[in-house]
Amino acid sequence: MKYVYVFEEGSKEQKYLLGGKGANLAEMTKLGLPVPPGFTITTEACNAYRAAGDELPDGLMNEVEVALRALETKIAKLLGDPVDPLLVSVRSGAPFSMPGMMDTVLNLGLNDVSVGGLATQTGNERFAFDSYRRFVQMFGKIVLDVDGELFEEALDDLREERGVATDPELSADDLRGLVETFKAIVAREAGVEFPQEPHEQLRYAIQAVFRSWNGDRAKLYRKMESIPDDLGTAVNVQTMVFGNKGDDSGTGVGFTRNPATGENNHYGDFLTNAQGEDVVAGIRVTEPLDSMGNHFPDCYQQLLAAFAMLENHYRDMCDIEFTIEQGRLFLLQTRVGKRTAAAALRMAVEMAGEGLINEREAVLRVQPGQLDQMLHPQFDPDAEYTTLAKGLNASPGAAVGRVYFTADDAQTRQEAGEKVLLVRPETSPDDLHGMIAAEGILTSRGGLVSHAAVVARGMGTPAICGAESVKIDLAAKLFRVGDTVVREGDVISINGSTGEIVIGEVPVVVPEPSGPFETLLGWADNYRRLKVRTNADLPEDARKALEFGAEGIGLCRTEHMFLGDRLPTVQRMILADTEAEETAALAELHALQRQDFVELLEAMDGLPVTVRLLDPPLHEFLPNVEELLVKQAKSGLDAKESQLLAAAEAWREVNPMLGTRGCRLGILKPGLYRMQVRALIEAAIERKLAGGDPKVEIMIPLVVSKAELALLVDWTREVAEATAADALGGVEYLVGTMIETPRAALTADEIAEVAEFFSFGTNDLTQMAFGFSRDDVEGRFMPEYLELGLLPANPFETLDQSGVGLLVRWAIEKGRSTRPDIKLGICGEHGGDPESVRFCHDVGLDYVSCSPYRVPIARLAAAHAALDADGQGSTA
Amino acid sequence: MKYVYVFEEGSKEQKYLLGGKGANLAEMTKLGLPVPPGFTITTEACNAYRAAGDELPDGLMNEVEVALRALETKIAKLLGDPVDPLLVSVRSGAPFSMPGMMDTVLNLGLNDVSVGGLATQTGNERFAFDSYRRFVQMFGKIVLDVDGELFEEALDDLREERGVATDPELSADDLRGLVETFKAIVAREAGVEFPQEPHEQLRYAIQAVFRSWNGDRAKLYRKMESIPDDLGTAVNVQTMVFGNKGDDSGTGVGFTRNPATGENNHYGDFLTNAQGEDVVAGIRVTEPLDSMGNHFPDCYQQLLAAFAMLENHYRDMCDIEFTIEQGRLFLLQTRVGKRTAAAALRMAVEMAGEGLINEREAVLRVQPGQLDQMLHPQFDPDAEYTTLAKGLNASPGAAVGRVYFTADDAQTRQEAGEKVLLVRPETSPDDLHGMIAAEGILTSRGGLVSHAAVVARGMGTPAICGAESVKIDLAAKLFRVGDTVVREGDVISINGSTGEIVIGEVPVVVPEPSGPFETLLGWADNYRRLKVRTNADLPEDARKALEFGAEGIGLCRTEHMFLGDRLPTVQRMILADTEAEETAALAELHALQRQDFVELLEAMDGLPVTVRLLDPPLHEFLPNVEELLVKQAKSGLDAKESQLLAAAEAWREVNPMLGTRGCRLGILKPGLYRMQVRALIEAAIERKLAGGDPKVEIMIPLVVSKAELALLVDWTREVAEATAADALGGVEYLVGTMIETPRAALTADEIAEVAEFFSFGTNDLTQMAFGFSRDDVEGRFMPEYLELGLLPANPFETLDQSGVGLLVRWAIEKGRSTRPDIKLGICGEHGGDPESVRFCHDVGLDYVSCSPYRVPIARLAAAHAALDADGQGSTA
Repeated sequence: MKYVYVFEEGSKEQKYLLGGKGANLAEMTKLGLPVPPGFTITTEACNAYRAAGDELPDGLMNEVEVALRALETKIAKLLGDPVDPLLVSVRSGAPFSMPGMMDTVLNLGLNDVSVGGLATQTGNERFAFDSYRRFVQMFGKIVLDVDGELFEEALDDLREERGVATDPELSADDLRGLVETFKAIVAREAGVEFPQEPHEQLRYAIQAVFRSWNGDRAKLYRKMESIPDDLGTAVNVQTMVFGNKGDDSGTGVGFTRNPATGENNHYGDFLTNAQGEDVVAGIRVTEPLDSMGNHFPDCYQQLLAAFAMLENHYRDMCDIEFTIEQGRLFLLQTRVGKRTAAAALRMAVEMAGEGLINEREAVLRVQPGQLDQMLHPQFDPDAEYTTLAKGLNASPGAAVGRVYFTADDAQTRQEAGEKVLLVRPETSPDDLHGMIAAEGILTSRGGLVSHAAVVARGMGTPAICGAESVKIDLAAKLFRVGDTVVREGDVISINGSTGEIVIGEVPVVVPEPSGPFETLLGWADNYRRLKVRTNADLPEDARKALEFGAEGIGLCRTEHMFLGDRLPTVQRMILADTEAEETAALAELHALQRQDFVELLEAMDGLPVTVRLLDPPLHEFLPNVEELLVKQAKSGLDAKESQLLAAAEAWREVNPMLGTRGCRLGILKPGLYRMQVRALIEAAIERKLAGGDPKVEIMIPLVVSKAELALLVDWTREVAEATAADALGGVEYLVGTMIETPRAALTADEIAEVAEFFSFGTNDLTQMAFGFSRDDVEGRFMPEYLELGLLPANPFETLDQSGVGLLVRWAIEKGRSTRPDIKLGICGEHGGDPESVRFCHDVGLDYVSCSPYRVPIARLAAAHAALDADGQGSTA
Repeated sequence: MKYVYVFEEGSKEQKYLLGGKGANLAEMTKLGLPVPPGFTITTEACNAYRAAGDELPDGLMNEVEVALRALETKIAKLLGDPVDPLLVSVRSGAPFSMPGMMDTVLNLGLNDVSVGGLATQTGNERFAFDSYRRFVQMFGKIVLDVDGELFEEALDDLREERGVATDPELSADDLRGLVETFKAIVAREAGVEFPQEPHEQLRYAIQAVFRSWNGDRAKLYRKMESIPDDLGTAVNVQTMVFGNKGDDSGTGVGFTRNPATGENNHYGDFLTNAQGEDVVAGIRVTEPLDSMGNHFPDCYQQLLAAFAMLENHYRDMCDIEFTIEQGRLFLLQTRVGKRTAAAALRMAVEMAGEGLINEREAVLRVQPGQLDQMLHPQFDPDAEYTTLAKGLNASPGAAVGRVYFTADDAQTRQEAGEKVLLVRPETSPDDLHGMIAAEGILTSRGGLVSHAAVVARGMGTPAICGAESVKIDLAAKLFRVGDTVVREGDVISINGSTGEIVIGEVPVVVPEPSGPFETLLGWADNYRRLKVRTNADLPEDARKALEFGAEGIGLCRTEHMFLGDRLPTVQRMILADTEAEETAALAELHALQRQDFVELLEAMDGLPVTVRLLDPPLHEFLPNVEELLVKQAKSGLDAKESQLLAAAEAWREVNPMLGTRGCRLGILKPGLYRMQVRALIEAAIERKLAGGDPKVEIMIPLVVSKAELALLVDWTREVAEATAADALGGVEYLVGTMIETPRAALTADEIAEVAEFFSFGTNDLTQMAFGFSRDDVEGRFMPEYLELGLLPANPFETLDQSGVGLLVRWAIEKGRSTRPDIKLGICGEHGGDPESVRFCHDVGLDYVSCSPYRVPIARLAAAHAALDADGQGSTA
C-alpha cells in the first residue's frame, strides 16, 4: 500500500485517494504551473489510522520521510536547518469540501534554532519571530487543542504592556518574548512541551488531521450531507511561500469568470505584501485583480495564462489562490468555482456556445435547486443585516413592507399605496384578500402545509410560517421577539427562502428570468422523460405555470373554489335542514364551479387537467368553535351564529387529518361529488363546443379500498353519462385516484382494477407513514430530530425513499400488475424537489406536478435524472 | 352434468352441491328415517341458470320431469290429478343458512281442478280451498312478486263482509270465492294469469328460487358474511304432508339436547293439528315436547329413536322439524343445532366425556367469540324489551341502573346504595371515580378507543359509546332520544355487547364460568402454540388476567399511572419553568412509579412484563382549552388556571394522534423516560432482592426509524446500568419497540438491529394505514361504510389482512432478516379477536396480548388456529 504521493504523481481524477485539494495540486503540477512543491498523504492512510484505533499505519512515516527528503533535495533546503530552513504547510483535504475538520498549520519547521535561520535568510528578524509565534499559536490551538483565546489574551496583554494598538507596532524582541509566553501556555494547557523537532511537529500535525475527521462537527456535517464516514481525508504537505515578504510580494484569489454574473471575464481580489488569510479575513481593503497588472505585470500575464489554461483544462470556471513571493508567482490551490444561479446559467450556456462543453454537460452544470434564486426576489447578497428571528421557510423569496395584523388593514393600506406585510398567528380563508394585498406573509403558528404556506406558495408570495418566537398581540397591534417590539406600520423584511425576519428594510434584488434561463431549460426538455405538470386551482396560476413550461395540471384542488365570497353558500349547504335546501345550495355552487372549470380548461386547452373532487373536512368551511364559544360566553350569539356553532361542533374532529374528508365525505354527502362531476363535464362540453380541446382527469381523493373507489367511479360515470346525454355530446375523461393512504398503496393491485390513473399524494402518504402531522411536527420536534440526525432530511421536503418510497414502489408494481398501462404521477410537494424528482424518474412515473414556481426546477431536475440514468455522471 | 338428485342419492357431505337442507334430507333418507320423498336440484343448476343470463339450463326440466315421475310412482299420486293430486313444497337451500332468499312455496300442484280431488280425498272441502287460497297467495307473493298486502286486504274485506272475526269462521264457499279474488289480483298485478298447469307452476317456482339468489338482500347478506357469490342455491321439491288434518295430526320442533343449557336431554315444542309455521309464528301456545308422548305415544318413541340416531350419526346436537299426518311421523328437516355459549361448552365437554367426540373436536366445537357471553352479565335471552337507541358496543356485558350525569353524583348515589349508570357526553380522567362506581357507562360521543371505552373494557364494566342520538343536557340533568326524556335517577338498561339502550329494567343473567369452561380451556391450551398475555396497568387487572390464564403482560400503559391524584404532579412537571422544578416533579413521580412497578412485577412474578414508556401527548394531562377559554370569558381565570391554559395551548395539536407523543416526547423531554426506566429497574431489583423473579421488557412506542430507537435504547441501557450499579445488583431486561407506524413496519430490518422485540401496535397501525382516526370515524362513517359493503369488517375489531396485515408480514420478514431470534407479539385490540388471533398464529408471532376479559377468548382462538393449521378442519 502506497500512502504518499508527491504532487508530480497524482491527477485531478484521484479525488477519492488524494482529496480534492491534493488532486488539484497534482493536476496543476502536471500542467507545469508554478506550484510550490509538496506531497499528499492519501485518504487510505487516514482509514488505516482509524482502523488501527488511531495509530499511524506501519510504514507511513517512512514514506513521509522519503517524500520529505526528495522535497528537501528539490528546494535545496532542509527541514529545521538552522541556516536556511525549509518551512511547510500542512492542510487537510477530503474528497468533498468539509467544514469542521482541521484546516491549516503554516510555518511548520520553525523552532528555537531555525527561527534564526529564517531571520538571517530574510534579513527580517521581526518577520521570523512573527512567523514563529503564529506557528506556535496555530499548532497549539489546532494540533494540541489548546483554547485559542489564551493566545489572543496573551497578545492583548503584551500590546497593553507596550502601549501599542496594533501588532505591527510590536518589535522583534516583543515577538521573541511572545513566543516564550506561547510555549509556556502550550506546556501548561496541553501537558506537553511544544515540540522542537520538526519531524515530530509533522507527525503531530498529520495525526491531528486524521483525528479531526472524526470530530463531532465533522461527523455531524457528514451525516447532514450524506457523506460516507469511510471516505477519509488526505493530508497535504507543501513548501511555504510568503506573500508578506515586502512590496515585491503579494497574494490573491481569482476566478476565471465572474462567479456572480457569469460574465466571461476574470475576476478577483489582490493584496500587496500580505498572507492569503488577509484577503479572506477582510482586515485590509483588497484591490481588484486587474490592478495587479500595474504592480506585477509579468506575474499578472503569467496568472492570466494560467487562468486560460486551467479553464480550458477543467472545462469549467476555476477558482484559484495564488501568492507572489519576491516577484515570483505561485499557485496554491485551484478548484471548480462556486457561482450564483444566474452565473451558472450564463456560464453553462456560453461555454456550450464556445464549444467548451456540450449541451448535455451544460444542463448538468446548473443545479435545479439553484433556480429558485431566479424566480423570486432575494435579499441583496451584499446586504448586511441582523436577523431578529427565524421561522419556517414556507414560500421562497424576499419581501419588505409595513406590518399589518389584519387582512382588512393590509388591504386598506395596500390600496392606499403602501407595501404591506401581513402578520397573523395563522391565516384562514377569511384572510385571503389581505394575503393577496401583501408583499409577504408571516405567521407565528402553522407548518409548511398550513393554510398560509400553501396559499402563499401557490401565489408565489414570500412567506414565513411557524415563527414561534414571534409573540403576536392582536389587540395591541404589535408583536414581540424577546424584548424587541414591532408595531403596526413598522417596516420589516422577510426572507421566505431562509425563514429570516429582519427589522427595517433589507435591499432586495429582483431577478429576471434571462435568455440563458430559457435556453438551458429548452435544452433540459430535450433530455427528460418525465412530464412536468403544475398544481393550480385558478386560471391565473395555470397561465403562470404555462409560462414556466407546465404540460398540464396535475392537481386542481376544488376546495379553493369553495372559499371567499362563496363560503356563505357552502355554509348553507352544510346547514341545510331539508334536502331541498341542500339541493338549492348545491345548485348555486354548481353554476360557479362550472364557470371555474370552463376558465381553467380554457387556460390549459389541449393539456391534461386533473381535478380532485372535494378533499378537506367540512369544518374547514365553518367558523372556529373556540371563538364562537368565547363570544357566546362574553356577549351571546345570534341565531345564525348559534346555528354555525352547532354545525361546527357537529363536524369537528379530534384528528381531522384522519377524519371525514376526501371520498369519505363524498360518500356521506353524495350530492356534493355528483355536483362537481356534473359541473366539470358540462364545462368540458362547453369548451369542446367552443372549439377547444379539453382533457379532463377526475381524481378521487383519500381512497383506502377498491370497493370505495368502485362505488365512486360508478357514480362519476353515471353522472358524466347523464350530463353528456343532456348536452347531446360527449367528452373523454379519465377517472383515477390519489394514492395517499398507506392502505391504498398496499392494495394498489385491487384499486388499479377500477382506477385509470394513480397520482401519489406523497404529502399525506408521508404524514400517515410516519404518523407525523405536518401542522404539529414541523414547528415542534422536526428541528430537533434533524439536528440529532434522527432523520436524514425533512421527509415533507425530500421524499423518504426507504419508507414512503417503498410504498410508492410497491403501489407502482402492484398497480401495473392489474393495469399495465396505468398512468402514474405525483402531486405532493415532492414533485418540485430535485432529489424526489430523481426518485420519480427512477421508479418510472409518467409525470410530476408541482406549484407553478417550481415547474422550471422540476424540468431541470427531470433532465438531470434522465441524464444520470443514462450514465452521464452524477451532478453531486 | 347431473342437475337433479333424489333424496336417496345424496349425503350430508354434499352441502355445496345440494345445499344444507338438501344434503341433510338425503342423509336422513339414507338412514331410513321417515322423510317425505322428494328430490333436490343442485347449486350447479343455479350457477348455470345465472351464467346463461337467467335461463334454466338445457336438460334441467327433463331431469325434473324424470324425478317427478319417480316420485309420483313412489307415492302413487300424480301432480295435478283431479282425483288424488300429489302436492309438493318447493324450498330454497343454500350451502349456508341465508336470509333474504325465497323461502318456501307450499301446496304446489293445486289448481281449479285438483282442489276438488284434495277435497274428496280429505273429505274436507274447506281444508282444500283454504290450502288452495294459501298456495295462490304464496305463489303470487313469492314467485310473481305481487305485493302481499293486497291479498291480506282482500281477506280482511271478506271477513268484514261476512261479519266474522277469524279465518276459521269463513266457509268453504267463502274460501272458494277468495281463490277467485286472489287469482284476479295475480292477473292484474303480475300481468299473467295464475298458472293452472302444475308443471308450469313448478318451473316458475324453481326459477324464482334461482332468481332470489341474486336479490338485493341476499347479496348484501353474502357480502357481510363473506359468502362467495358463486356458491349458488339448491332447490328442494318434497311431497307435502299436513299436520293440520285433525287431532290425529300435529307438528313440532325438537333438539337432541337442551340448546340453552347444554343439558343432555331432548327439548322442544309441539302442537296438535297445526302446520309447521304455527309453531314458529307463536300464534298458538305450544306444548313441551314431552307432552307429545301423551297424544302420540308411538310417534313419540319413534321420534326419540330418531333423535338418538341422528345425534350419534352427526356426532353433535341436532335440531329437527317434524310433522305427524294422520298418526304417521315424518321428519322434514334436520341440522346441527345452534346453542348458547354455556350449552356449547357443556355439550362439548360432555360429548368428549361420552366418547362421542375427542378433545380436539370438543375444542373446535366452541366458537371463541361466544365465550364473551360467559364472562359478562347478559340481558336474559327470554326478556322482551324495546330498544330506545343504539350506540357503539364499546365494552361487553349488560347493566341496569339509575342514570346520573356527573361522576360525583354517580359516586355519591352508589355509596348510598343505588346501582348507577354514568351518562356523559364523553369521559375524561377526572371521571374515573364515577366510572368505578358505575354498573355501566353510556357516552354520546367518542369511538371504540375513546377514554370511556378503553377504561371500561379494562375494568370489565359494560359500556356504550358514541350513542349520537342520545342528546344530553347536563344543565338540566336529563337526556333526550327523539321525544323521549330520561331524567336523573330514572332506570335504564344497557347492553354493551350490542349497543342497545332500553328504558326501565331488563332482567339480566350473570353467568358463572363453569367447570366445562375451565376444562375446555385447559384442553385448548394443549393445542395452541401462541402464548397469550394481557394488557394490564394495575396489579388488580394483572391478577384478574392471571385467573383467566394470562401468561404475562404484553402491554402495561404507564400513562395510566400518571392520572388521578397524580395529575397535579404531572402538571407541575409540564409547567416547570426551571430544570430544578422539573426534576423535583419527576422525582415525585419516580417514587410513585417505582411502587407501581413493584406491585405489578409481584403480581406477575416469573412471567414477562412489557412496560411501555409514556405514550400519549402531554396535553392529555392538561385541562381542556375550550372550557378554560369559556371560563376566562365568563368569570376570568386565577393565576394557576392561566398558567394551565397557557400550557394547554402550547401543547395542543391539530392532529394529536400524529403529533408529539410516544418516543417523540421521550426525546424532547429526556428526563421523563430516564425516570421511568430508573423506576422500573429499581423495582425489578427490589423484587429480585425479595426473592422474586421479575422479567422486564421495556417497550419504546411510536418509533419511525432506527436512529430514533437507537438513541433511546442507548439512554435506556445507560440508565439501567447506572441504576444497577447504584443498587449493587443487576437484572436482566429486554429493550424493544412497538411497530405501530407504517414506516416502522417498512424499515423493520433496520429497526430490528436495535430492537430485541417487536410488539405490533395494530390499533395505531390501522389508524395510520387507513388514515382513520378511531375517535372520528367509528361514530361517523364506519357504520355507513360497513352497510355499503365498502369494508368487509371494522378494521379496528378484526385485523385488515390485505392492508395492515401486509405491513405486519413485511415487518416480520424484514425484522427476522437482521435478527433471526427477534421476539414478536401483538398488543393492539386485535389480540383478543378470534379471526385476528388466527392471523397472528399464521404469520408466526410468539404471543398475543389482550384485555383481561378477552384472555380466555384468545386462548381458545389460538387453539383453533393451531388445530386448523394442523389440518383439523375449519370451524366455520
